[in-house]
Amino acid sequence: MADRSFTAAELHEAWPALSMEERAEGFELLQREEAERFFTQLSAHDQAQMVLLLPPGERRIWLRLLPPDEAVDLIQEAPLEERENLLQLFDDTTRAEVRGLLVYAEDDAGGLMNPRYARLRPDMSVDEAISYLRRDARTRGESAYYAYVVDAENRLRGVVSFRDLFVSSGEKRIETVMRKDVVTASEDMDQEALSQLFARHNLIMIPVVDSERRIKGVVTLDDIIDVVQEEATEDIQKIGGTAALEAPYLEVPLLQMIGKRAGWLTVLFIGEMLTATAMGHFEAEIARAVVLALFVPLIISSGGNSGSQASTLVIRAMALGEVRLRDWWLVVRRELATGFVLGSILAGIGLIRILVWQSAFQIYGEHYVLVGVTVAVSLLGVVLWGTLAGSTLPLVLRMIGLDPASASAPFVATLVDVTGILIYFSVANVMLRGTLL
Amino acid sequence: MADRSFTAAELHEAWPALSMEERAEGFELLQREEAERFFTQLSAHDQAQMVLLLPPGERRIWLRLLPPDEAVDLIQEAPLEERENLLQLFDDTTRAEVRGLLVYAEDDAGGLMNPRYARLRPDMSVDEAISYLRRDARTRGESAYYAYVVDAENRLRGVVSFRDLFVSSGEKRIETVMRKDVVTASEDMDQEALSQLFARHNLIMIPVVDSERRIKGVVTLDDIIDVVQEEATEDIQKIGGTAALEAPYLEVPLLQMIGKRAGWLTVLFIGEMLTATAMGHFEAEIARAVVLALFVPLIISSGGNSGSQASTLVIRAMALGEVRLRDWWLVVRRELATGFVLGSILAGIGLIRILVWQSAFQIYGEHYVLVGVTVAVSLLGVVLWGTLAGSTLPLVLRMIGLDPASASAPFVATLVDVTGILIYFSVANVMLRGTLL
Repeated sequence: MADRSFTAAELHEAWPALSMEERAEGFELLQREEAERFFTQLSAHDQAQMVLLLPPGERRIWLRLLPPDEAVDLIQEAPLEERENLLQLFDDTTRAEVRGLLVYAEDDAGGLMNPRYARLRPDMSVDEAISYLRRDARTRGESAYYAYVVDAENRLRGVVSFRDLFVSSGEKRIETVMRKDVVTASEDMDQEALSQLFARHNLIMIPVVDSERRIKGVVTLDDIIDVVQEEATEDIQKIGGTAALEAPYLEVPLLQMIGKRAGWLTVLFIGEMLTATAMGHFEAEIARAVVLALFVPLIISSGGNSGSQASTLVIRAMALGEVRLRDWWLVVRRELATGFVLGSILAGIGLIRILVWQSAFQIYGEHYVLVGVTVAVSLLGVVLWGTLAGSTLPLVLRMIGLDPASASAPFVATLVDVTGILIYFSVANVMLRGTLL
Repeated sequence: MADRSFTAAELHEAWPALSMEERAEGFELLQREEAERFFTQLSAHDQAQMVLLLPPGERRIWLRLLPPDEAVDLIQEAPLEERENLLQLFDDTTRAEVRGLLVYAEDDAGGLMNPRYARLRPDMSVDEAISYLRRDARTRGESAYYAYVVDAENRLRGVVSFRDLFVSSGEKRIETVMRKDVVTASEDMDQEALSQLFARHNLIMIPVVDSERRIKGVVTLDDIIDVVQEEATEDIQKIGGTAALEAPYLEVPLLQMIGKRAGWLTVLFIGEMLTATAMGHFEAEIARAVVLALFVPLIISSGGNSGSQASTLVIRAMALGEVRLRDWWLVVRRELATGFVLGSILAGIGLIRILVWQSAFQIYGEHYVLVGVTVAVSLLGVVLWGTLAGSTLPLVLRMIGLDPASASAPFVATLVDVTGILIYFSVANVMLRGTLL
């Protein structure tokens, strides 16, 4: 076939649309050097799939391209029954490192770190350090940007960047050049907290230390960028009312995709059934004044929309660390004011709409002013309530230990739909008693 | 006051809750070295605010802590009338660089790049390169991880990492050590495409080149992590039906916050008014069979919820480059199947609910089976339609050059609400003709 002159860029382009077999075929058509680079750039998920599609004899060469932290990610993406076989393909040193890393949770600092890093002693001279690192770099797996200065017990004493080494005169001792106030992470630090640490200190690399300040490994910024993307993706999917997908959209098997969506959708549907119950309560009112029914969707959806706005803003602000639990009063104060103004705007527009339509089409009966005021007052109440519920729900979820992002737009909308109906018909009962009702 | 022993960490903790004046006060209480680090870690937005709060005489020392690319960000965050004054505070070299960068759009590669980078000549030896970089590093502003090899016209020929230099023997010529296939970005590359380039190639630094491959500057991964966070935040805010905020939640002035939300909320409200018109069309049917009105919220919200799921999944997949325009058929096929199954599940639950409630409370009249079937068929139709509309809308928006994230959960819900009413009453007209209607 003329297809043989296949480039990595072309394969990357076509990737999402290819079946697993086509991917393996395409991969085998690449030139060796290109294939190596292509493989190292795949996600851990795709790497695992690819390795398992290859004949067992070929797997070793690909696995050995990976530094220990990426090897761990690949192993964790493989089915349980394949993991031990894959582990056997690494050399002894890497296998020991990978096993050491496998005990950490995938989304902790321990699960993200690379156990290989450059280390120096405080009493070396800068020249000694540079020539030591030059020798050491030939054997080390990953490129390093910092060297960590440790004492005889491997306890962290300081850090020097390669740039520090470059700018210092050669005879200076490392301990006079190093920075002592190193930003560190603990092994069980959550990846979201870790990414905030990177962002806050503008770092490229953070060492992971145990309770006695012994270095266990280093986390680099390029691992964190994946974490940041992943966390945002999870939050967005939850905000949309889906369980997090765990694989690219087009690659999730159809049944699994349906499963991820059916759960929440069913829960929301069952919750939303309360609207039928609530409406049923007011069946007599609707029979007497059918005009009331016409505005139900308008009123409850306005509550849902303003609630979605408030909850997504607060969820994102919490994920970025801009809003914390103790800021709840600041949030409530702001959202009360915002909800009041937004509700008044919609109430105004709603009232005008009814008055204009009435003068044009005479469809709302003789008590149209009362109907208009009922709709306007309900809109104000529903929007105010939607804004308040949407903004406080993420805080409440965090307080009881759940993920704030579960306060999805559909969840808030459903919650507000039911209460919106109650608000609307209660207002109607007060406003229209003796006239329409 | 005993408050004088104030640490940077404490100030950082309290930051979001402080007024501008309190921030400036707290900042001035920090020790000089801590204050410098604290300042460089602030966002460009906060840096600009802080500098403008300080007396003009003090501004210079803080501005000069920043490398040119960060100085540009600060200038762009300052009010227009202050920019020229701030520019005058830089030294001549930096001012020229900053002016050069200000011509680029903030979210292009040109607007993110640092014009200072390490450069080498291809005919240097490795030892010459190392000692050249050692001298050069003393004057350069930012730490570098790669040195770019350029010819006499400053055209990019290759790249060497510091690690490459460390592992190569000293007498080798740079052109034999360098990698020639450098990943580059053009000056006008959009920041989202740039972040995908970083993610795809696992890079720490990418050079920005003009059409003749002359290097204009370099973009580093730590700038990109901010971009990734920012893009995700914008998408989440849009998905929630708000205009992007541009500042942390608690810092957006209340009026501006209301403005960002009122726009979409009003548009959605006006769109949602069509539900009242649609309901008005079926007023006679509702008057004859009030029971129909009870299920309106349940049916339309199910369409909205399934639409929100589909649109957020597709929006995120497009932002990550997992789904592209040409994949539209893959998306439609998947969502048709998913929508059909999800719709069937909800239809089943809805039918059972009506049958069970009827046998318990006898509230749905003699034709309850027909009512149940009407609701079930409508649910299937509405969920199928919601899923299809939600998943294709982001693709359509991208096709006509708009941001897919504008297919917000509330927008999709509103769209589906109106059509949901039409579907429901059309089904009812067919199913119940001659009995209830």
